[in-house]
Amino acid sequence: MISYADLCGIDSHGIGMLPTYRIWREKGWINFQPAIEVVRESDASALIDADGALGHIPSHMAMNLAIDKCRKGGIGAVAVRNSSHFGAAGAYAAMAVEKNLIGMATTSAPSPAIVPTFGLEPMFGTNPIAFAAPTRRNPPFLLDMATSTVAIGKVTLALRRGKKIPRGWAQDDRGRPLTDSKAASRSHLMTPLGCSPETSSHKGYGLAAMVEILTTILSGNGRTSNAQNDAVSKRRVSHFFLALDPGLYREAGEFEAGMDDMIDALHACKPADGQRSVLVAGDPEYAESDRRRTEGIPLSRALVARMRDVTRDAHVPFLLEGSAT
Amino acid sequence: MISYADLCGIDSHGIGMLPTYRIWREKGWINFQPAIEVVRESDASALIDADGALGHIPSHMAMNLAIDKCRKGGIGAVAVRNSSHFGAAGAYAAMAVEKNLIGMATTSAPSPAIVPTFGLEPMFGTNPIAFAAPTRRNPPFLLDMATSTVAIGKVTLALRRGKKIPRGWAQDDRGRPLTDSKAASRSHLMTPLGCSPETSSHKGYGLAAMVEILTTILSGNGRTSNAQNDAVSKRRVSHFFLALDPGLYREAGEFEAGMDDMIDALHACKPADGQRSVLVAGDPEYAESDRRRTEGIPLSRALVARMRDVTRDAHVPFLLEGSAT
Repeated sequence: MISYADLCGIDSHGIGMLPTYRIWREKGWINFQPAIEVVRESDASALIDADGALGHIPSHMAMNLAIDKCRKGGIGAVAVRNSSHFGAAGAYAAMAVEKNLIGMATTSAPSPAIVPTFGLEPMFGTNPIAFAAPTRRNPPFLLDMATSTVAIGKVTLALRRGKKIPRGWAQDDRGRPLTDSKAASRSHLMTPLGCSPETSSHKGYGLAAMVEILTTILSGNGRTSNAQNDAVSKRRVSHFFLALDPGLYREAGEFEAGMDDMIDALHACKPADGQRSVLVAGDPEYAESDRRRTEGIPLSRALVARMRDVTRDAHVPFLLEGSAT
Repeated sequence: MISYADLCGIDSHGIGMLPTYRIWREKGWINFQPAIEVVRESDASALIDADGALGHIPSHMAMNLAIDKCRKGGIGAVAVRNSSHFGAAGAYAAMAVEKNLIGMATTSAPSPAIVPTFGLEPMFGTNPIAFAAPTRRNPPFLLDMATSTVAIGKVTLALRRGKKIPRGWAQDDRGRPLTDSKAASRSHLMTPLGCSPETSSHKGYGLAAMVEILTTILSGNGRTSNAQNDAVSKRRVSHFFLALDPGLYREAGEFEAGMDDMIDALHACKPADGQRSVLVAGDPEYAESDRRRTEGIPLSRALVARMRDVTRDAHVPFLLEGSAT
C-alpha cells in the first residue's frame, strides 16, 4: 500500500512517513505487534479493532472485507477503530475499483487542524474523503481530497521552498488569514474547504464533520478534539470503507460505459486560456504513476539517510535500487 | 415534503417552486400521471423509474424503501431515474434520521451550471449532497449543500436586492470572475466549491462529479450536459438515497451519545470576534423551523397571486391561512 502513494506522486503519504512512524512507535502510539480483531459483523458490515496497528494493515483487511461482502450482497461497509495513519485514502478506494466496484474510504486524523466556520479552535483533522468508480477505456475516476482547503503538506512544502501561501488556506488564533508559510505551519489552523464564510466554508466544515461522524463516532474511537480520550491521546484514528456494486442498478458494462462517456465529455470541455485540457479526478496521479513505473520513484538524499537509520536500528537489511537524488 | 423546505426557510425549494412546476408541466417536462415502478431490487437496493413524476413522490418512496431495507439488513441504497425536481435534498436525509438511521440524499439537476476547474463550459448541475445523523439531546446533524460555491438561488437573491456578489461565486464564458449579479445570473456559470484552482476548486468539481456518478450514471438517467439524451432534453433528473444503521457498529444509544458529545463540543468552540457561537449543520434550519411553526410561513403577495392562478387553472380550491406579507 505504501507503494501506491509513492507511485502516484503523493510523496507526503508514502515512504516519506517512515521516520515519523518510527517516532510514533517510540512514543507508544503505534503497536507493531497488534491483535487485529473483527469485533462485530453482519452480512453487509463489520467493525474492526486495530489494536493500535499501523493503519495500512487493518485498512487493507477492512477494504477487502467490504469487497467480499459487496460481491455477495452488493454493498459492504466496514469501520475500523483504534488504528493509526493509513497512508493515502485513495489507495483503498482504488482497491474496490480493481474489482469493478465503486469504492469510498475516509479517515479521521491524529490531531485537530480544521477550524469550524465562525470559530477559533481546531476541531477536526483534515479528514479526507476518497471516492473511486470503475471505467472501461479511461483510467478510473479517483477523487482523494482533504476537507480542509488544502492538506497541511502544502503549507509544509511552501515553507520548505520559502514561499508565501495564498490567502484562505490557514489562519491565526484570532481567525485572521495567514499568508506567511512559517506562521501558518506554526498555527496549524486550517480553513475548511471554501476558505471563508462568504465563499461557503461552512460546506467544507460540514464535510469534515461528516467524515468525523463516519469515522470516530460510527466506530467508537473517540472524538479527535477530545485529548482526554485514551485512544485519542495515543493519536489513534478510525476509518470507514464502503464498496458498492453498480451491478445492483445497471446491466453489466453499462455503468463503466457511462463513466467513460462522462470522462470523455470532461476531457473535451473547452479549456480556459493557457490550459491544455480539463482534468478528471485521478488524472494527475495516473500520469505520475505511469512516469514513475518507468523512471523510478525520486527520493531525497535526506530521506534515504533517515530510511537507512530506521532499517539499521530495526536490524533489517537496507536494499534500494538506483541512486538517491 | 414541500412543507419541509418552507418550514426550514429554504424558500427557493418549497411552495415557491409551484409556478415553475406548472411551466414544466406545460412543457411536458413533468408527468402528473406517472406510472412509478421499481425496476430492479435486491435485499439492500432498488432502482426506481419515476416516469417523469415530480421528484417529491418517487423520492419519498425511494427513501422509505431504503429505510425498510436498512431496518432489515442495516443498509439500504436506492437510485431513482427519470424523475424531476425533488425539492430540498435535506428533507430525505432527515427521513432516515427520524428512524434513528444515518441518511444520505443526492440528486442531479436539470441543467448544467458548474464549470470544471480549468474549463469554460458548464458540465454538472449544482449537484447537492445531504447527509444527516441522529442525536439524542441536540437537533440532528443535517448537512445540505450544493457542490458549487453557492447555490444559484443566492445569485438570484443578490440580483433581486440589487447587490453585487462576492468574487469567486460565478464566472463569465471566458472564465473571468463576475461580481455583477445580473451578469452572473445571465452567464449561469457557477464555480465548484473552492472557487478557484489556488483554493482547491478541483475538490468541489470532484464532489460534483461524485454526485453525477451516484445519480445519472448509477441510475442510467443520462449525463446532465448531454442535451441529445432524451431524458435530459426533458429535464429529467436522477437521485440516490442511502440509509445506514449505526447499530451495525455500536450498542444502542452509543452513536447518538457520540453525536451529542461532538455537537456540544462544536457549540462550545471559542467563537471568532463578533460571532455569538459556532453553528452545526442544521442549526439555522431547525431554528427557522421552530420560529415558523409558531409564527407561520411568510409568503410574498406576488407568490400568493401566482399560487392562486395555479389552483384556479387546476380547478382546485385555494385555501390559505393568515394574510400574505
